[in-house]
This record gives sequence, structure tokens and C-alpha cells, in this order.
Amino acid sequence: MLVTLTTDFGTRDAYVPAMKGTILDICPEARLVDITHEINPQDVMETAFVLRESIPYFPDQAVHLVVVDPGVGTERRPVALRHGNRWFVGPDNGVFPLVLDDEEPDEIVELDDPSAWRTEDPSTTFHGRDIFAPAAAHLAAGRSLADIGSPIDELEPLRWALPITDAEGVRGWIIHVDRFGNCITNITKDTLQSSQSNPGALDGAFKCFVGSSSFTSIEPTYGAVAEGEPLLLFGSSGFLEVAVNSGNAAELLDIRKGDAVNIVFHRDDKA
Amino acid sequence: MLVTLTTDFGTRDAYVPAMKGTILDICPEARLVDITHEINPQDVMETAFVLRESIPYFPDQAVHLVVVDPGVGTERRPVALRHGNRWFVGPDNGVFPLVLDDEEPDEIVELDDPSAWRTEDPSTTFHGRDIFAPAAAHLAAGRSLADIGSPIDELEPLRWALPITDAEGVRGWIIHVDRFGNCITNITKDTLQSSQSNPGALDGAFKCFVGSSSFTSIEPTYGAVAEGEPLLLFGSSGFLEVAVNSGNAAELLDIRKGDAVNIVFHRDDKA
Amino acid sequence: MLVTLTTDFGTRDAYVPAMKGTILDICPEARLVDITHEINPQDVMETAFVLRESIPYFPDQAVHLVVVDPGVGTERRPVALRHGNRWFVGPDNGVFPLVLDDEEPDEIVELDDPSAWRTEDPSTTFHGRDIFAPAAAHLAAGRSLADIGSPIDELEPLRWALPITDAEGVRGWIIHVDRFGNCITNITKDTLQSSQSNPGALDGAFKCFVGSSSFTSIEPTYGAVAEGEPLLLFGSSGFLEVAVNSGNAAELLDIRKGDAVNIVFHRDDKA
Repeated sequence: MLVTLTTDFGTRDAYVPAMKGTILDICPEARLVDITHEINPQDVMETAFVLRESIPYFPDQAVHLVVVDPGVGTERRPVALRHGNRWFVGPDNGVFPLVLDDEEPDEIVELDDPSAWRTEDPSTTFHGRDIFAPAAAHLAAGRSLADIGSPIDELEPLRWALPITDAEGVRGWIIHVDRFGNCITNITKDTLQSSQSNPGALDGAFKCFVGSSSFTSIEPTYGAVAEGEPLLLFGSSGFLEVAVNSGNAAELLDIRKGDAVNIVFHRDDKA
Repeated sequence: MLVTLTTDFGTRDAYVPAMKGTILDICPEARLVDITHEINPQDVMETAFVLRESIPYFPDQAVHLVVVDPGVGTERRPVALRHGNRWFVGPDNGVFPLVLDDEEPDEIVELDDPSAWRTEDPSTTFHGRDIFAPAAAHLAAGRSLADIGSPIDELEPLRWALPITDAEGVRGWIIHVDRFGNCITNITKDTLQSSQSNPGALDGAFKCFVGSSSFTSIEPTYGAVAEGEPLLLFGSSGFLEVAVNSGNAAELLDIRKGDAVNIVFHRDDKA
Repeated sequence: MLVTLTTDFGTRDAYVPAMKGTILDICPEARLVDITHEINPQDVMETAFVLRESIPYFPDQAVHLVVVDPGVGTERRPVALRHGNRWFVGPDNGVFPLVLDDEEPDEIVELDDPSAWRTEDPSTTFHGRDIFAPAAAHLAAGRSLADIGSPIDELEPLRWALPITDAEGVRGWIIHVDRFGNCITNITKDTLQSSQSNPGALDGAFKCFVGSSSFTSIEPTYGAVAEGEPLLLFGSSGFLEVAVNSGNAAELLDIRKGDAVNIVFHRDDKA
């Protein structure tokens, strides 16, 4: 079975191959595909974004191993879950509700069974190798969630990652700058529409400030503006993006990861 | 069947895993091998160089998916082609004639059949996922070129990438600087020999200027000069390289990608 | 069979895919897993460290191809060896005794049989593609060591990589800084204990100087000190590491790869 891997471990060290070796030792026929190992260290929000843009294209019956773990060594729970025909394994730090867009998983277990770990005395700093990789391998080998942990009812939400919304507007930030300089915000179409008094009418009804630029409309495609011109659009996974047609928005507009994105709604009497 | 992937998408974003997921969804048994995803953005010439140095070592019966696409959103055609027992898929932007060293493909199709795409409403900016990855997957699954597109007669050439040659000399440039600082030019042995009045006699018959250095001979191996000394040689795929024996030519000679390489022939009456 | 790859070739160039293509051409069913290709150029000691931290987690019956080759073009021997149910292939430059922690391999051969190379006229600079990748592929395909080379008795040791030890202390250096800023030394628990007059009593019996910091104890885990505090500990493969609990030691303590690590023992009359 297919096992995808997503981490913030980079590709220079032994972390990722130690996880891959552990998986193949338990499930020799597992087929491994890297999503990325270049997540910004401990950046759960960026992880969710990259997974939302890639997981939907994978076939069912895959196990998605996600180890971006700012809480390693604390009491955050190690979990595995099933959502339809997909399995996810990793620390319960809010990433999975974001990936699943708040849909409820069908089953969740806490990975509390030492017999399913690589060793009953796991490293305090490397649960990726000692707890999560073995769990993914057991699932890939056909064992059930019940075989590797104890059922739990719900996951931790990742509330702090959501933009702040009120009747005046939405305050979010840049969660990812991709290789081409596209700047992805944590503001989804749903967030934007549900926070407006007049949800249908986004155009002309707001002003969006980011970096040194401002926008008053959201375009359907890059090509809706001239080459070299900046624009706002919703990307394929539903997040608002700042882009430049045939250009690098991060460079041209001087935008960096973490920068604020402020959307101010026009009140009807002012508009 | 084997599918290799070559892109300028980098490995931090969801672009490459979205393509891999798409391939595995259509052809679960495909075996994926990355050539590189670190091509300089939109650099068709560098793409061709890396492919010429790697594709020949792969077995036959492989599909080579090549998505470096400066023209995405314009009218450049999406194509797939067969050359002997090898298949290539990607935008028709001149890269394939360079990879095939101007040999004619046996079959070429334009990928104009929406039923072979991932969706009939493909993204305007990500043909890699929606058109090219599915085409590679269909070929890997055993479908024929005729099943996924309409025959066309010839590919676009990549004329602008070729060095300028005349009786006085050859004017090319550095197309790639590798990890070890070797500087690869776009000047092939064929170009150099065919542009000389006296093709057999390269040594002593020219002067080559690059960066702050000049050369008057082409060596058979790195070891032909002392350690630390610069040299010109033809690499395994036939391109002229500037190197330093046991050293980093780019650093030592201050050469960068894009730098001019000028070869001036001596006229017989002057030599 | 599984073949892992470890090189200093990076992932931008054609070097690694040319090796992978060569392996798959000889052994189409080989399953390839990258350890890393980001070894510092020619850094045999870092190679050994990364392999010690990853190889033990892989299943038996794997072939580990290791091409970090500062001596390419010199007389260093190309070798392949078996240690239990694991095979290793690469240049005989001292890396394998370090990886095997000085255990004797069960069998060693010099790869001196041109019929097992990719070509009888191999590149003078790229033995990875022309000699080592084919050897790994032949082993993965089930051929024996005797089929691809001539038996030799022992490997070259890597003496220069070991720390200098005497009754006064141990002088080593930083061999690797990982993605999280952990600084790994070339000083093992064995080295430290065997060089002390009173091996059991490490704590309080020494002072360790590295960068601008000094330490007098070795902790069992990161959590033994407060968050943000520096510490010494032995990593999972037995090397002494300088770390900061929940922090980046390299940045916070201004430590770089290659920096000296000096351990001074207290003499009993002084302590």
C-alpha cells in the first residue's frame, strides 16, 4: 500500500531515511512517496496547506504519515485516523482537522500500544521513527486502527491558526510562499463569505491590504490581469492567494511568510 | 512501468506530490523516479542538458514526464511522443528536439483529448497535474499515443538556445553550473567542428574566452592538467565544459550561469 | 531488493538519476530509497554519521550504495562487502569501518571485473554511474560478491577522522550540524570512556569546551535541562552531541561544522 511522508526534517539528515527504513522493515511491500520534507520547522499551518493541495490527488487506500511536531516531548497525543478510505498518522496538534476541512474522521485512535511501536522504550525526541512510522507501516500492512491504539472521540482543533473575523473584516496572514513567489494566506473562501453581511458580493465590497499593496477584487484566473500585474485569487484548495501574473509576487510586492493580510469590509452606508 | 519526473517546481510545495498522486491514481503500479525538480524556473535549456545526461542510462519502456513550462497559459501545445522504446510527455517548447539531439520522434500527438485529462476543466496554470501527469500515467498503463491525443507531424524547435556560429567563431553561454562548480556551455562538439573551416584541428586553432579566463585547447580528461588548474573538456553528453581539476571552476574563475562563452577561430594566415 | 543511495551529488544535477537509471537498467525490480544526496562534498566522516543513524533501521537484505569519493581518479579501490545480511558498495576510503563501528565484514571484494561495470571504459570522474551503481544492481539482482570482484582481506581504516585522545583529554570536532541545529561531534561514548583513567565517572570529571560554551556533565535527554538551555548528550548512534532544549544550538552557541571540541579531564588531585 502507498505511504506518503510529510515532515519538517529536511533531506540532509538521517531522520527521513530512518523513518523509511523503519516502515520497510515492518511492511516491505510499502510504496513510499514524499510529499515534502521542507516544511518550515514546526509549522503546522504550512503543513496543512501543502497537504490540502496534494492529498486529494492521491488514490484511496493510502496512508498519509505527517510528522511536523512542535509538541514532541509534551503531552500531545500520537494518533492515527481513518477518513473514508484514507488513513492519517501523526501528532494530534491540529493539523488533521485543517487537512480534513473540519470533516469528522470515521475513526480515531491514540497510538498508546507499545507493542505497535518500534521499541517499547521510544526516543523522547524522535517519535517519527519510533511511534509514527511503525503505525503507518502496520496500517499499510493491513492491520486495523484497533490493532495499534485505543479509540478516542475527537482531535484537537487548531483554532489559533484561523484568521480573526468580525463584522468589520478579516485579519489573517501569509502561511506559505511557494517556489514561484505566490503568497498563500490562511483566509478561505468560506471564511470570507461567512464573515460578510452580504456574502454574495465580494467585489467592490472590501479592501484587502497586504505588504505595500491593496486590492479591491478577487480574480478568477491569473490571466484576468495584465502580465506583471498583481492580483488576488482563490487557489485550488480554497485559500486566498496574492500573485502576480507571470511574476513573483513575494519579490515584487515585498511580501514574506507571516506578513499580515487585512481585509476591511465597506459598510453599506459608506460604500 | 517506470515514469521519470523532471520539473522546475522544487520540492517544498504541493506541485510535485500532486502530480505523483495523479499518476498513481490512474496507474497504481507506476514506478516513479525523480530526475530533478530543481531546474531553474522556466529554463528549457538547462532541462535539456540534465535530461541528456540522465535519460540515456534509464531502461527502455520508460515514460519521461518533463514539465518546465514557460508558456503555460499561452498557445504552446501539450504533447506526447515516442522515440524508439521511450516515451516523452510535456509542453512542446523545444526541449524534446534538444533532448533527442534533433532525431525525429517515431510518433507525436497533441494532448487534445479532454477525456484523457484529469478533468475536462483543467487549471489554467497547472497543466503538469491536469494534462501531463495523466498522459504519462495512461502511457505507463499501456494505452497508446493514439488513445490520448491527435497525431501531429513535428515538434517546435528550440532555435534560440543554440550558439551563434559563423566563420569567425562560436558565441554561446553557460547553461548550467553543477554542484561541483563545473560550468556547462551550450556548445557541442558537433557545433564546434561543423563551424570550423578545418574541423579536425581544434587544438591551437582557437581561443576560448569565458569569465576572466581563456583557453586554447580542449583536454580529454580532468587529469590532463595539474590539480587546481582550469581546463576545457567535452562532458559525457557532448557539451563543452569549463572545469578545474579537483576544484570548483565557477568559484575559482568567477563564472555564472548565463555568462558568455566566446570561441574565436584563428584564420590560417594569422595562425 | 532494496537499494539505498547516499552521495554528495545533490539533487539538481543528472548525477543521481544517471545512477538510478543504471541500476534499474540492470535490475528493473530494484526498489530505490534515498538516504541523502546532500552530504557536504567529499565529507566521508559526515557520510558515516548519517549512515550510522539510518542504516540500522532498514531491513536486512538491502544493498547500501555509498558514493562520497574524494579519491576519484586516484588509486583508492572500488569495493563491495557483506556484513551479515547487508551489502555495501562504494569507494574504499574509510567510510565502511566507521559505519560498521570497526566490526569485520564477512566478505570484501575489489570491483576489478570490467564485465560487471556499465562499460569497460568507465568515466574517470563518475565511478558512481559506471562502477558502483552497476555493482549494487548486480547484488540486488542476486549475483554474489564473487561474481563481481576479487576477494580482498581488509578495508582501509579512516584513522584521521578519529579524535585525538590521551590521559589529559579528548580533542575532537563537529562533524555535522543537522537541520535543527544539533551539533554532532566525532567523539563516541566508547572513545570517551576508554580514554579516561576513571571510566565510570564522566560527570564532574571533565570539562568540555565547544564554541563559546563549556559543559561539565552529559545529560540523558534534552528534557534534563530547561527550555532554551544548552546541554551535551549522546545521540542514538553513540556520538556526543551539543544541543539546546527546544532550540537551535548551532545558532545560539555560534557553532559550525569543523569547530573544535575539547574535553579536558580533571586529574584526581585537582578535582
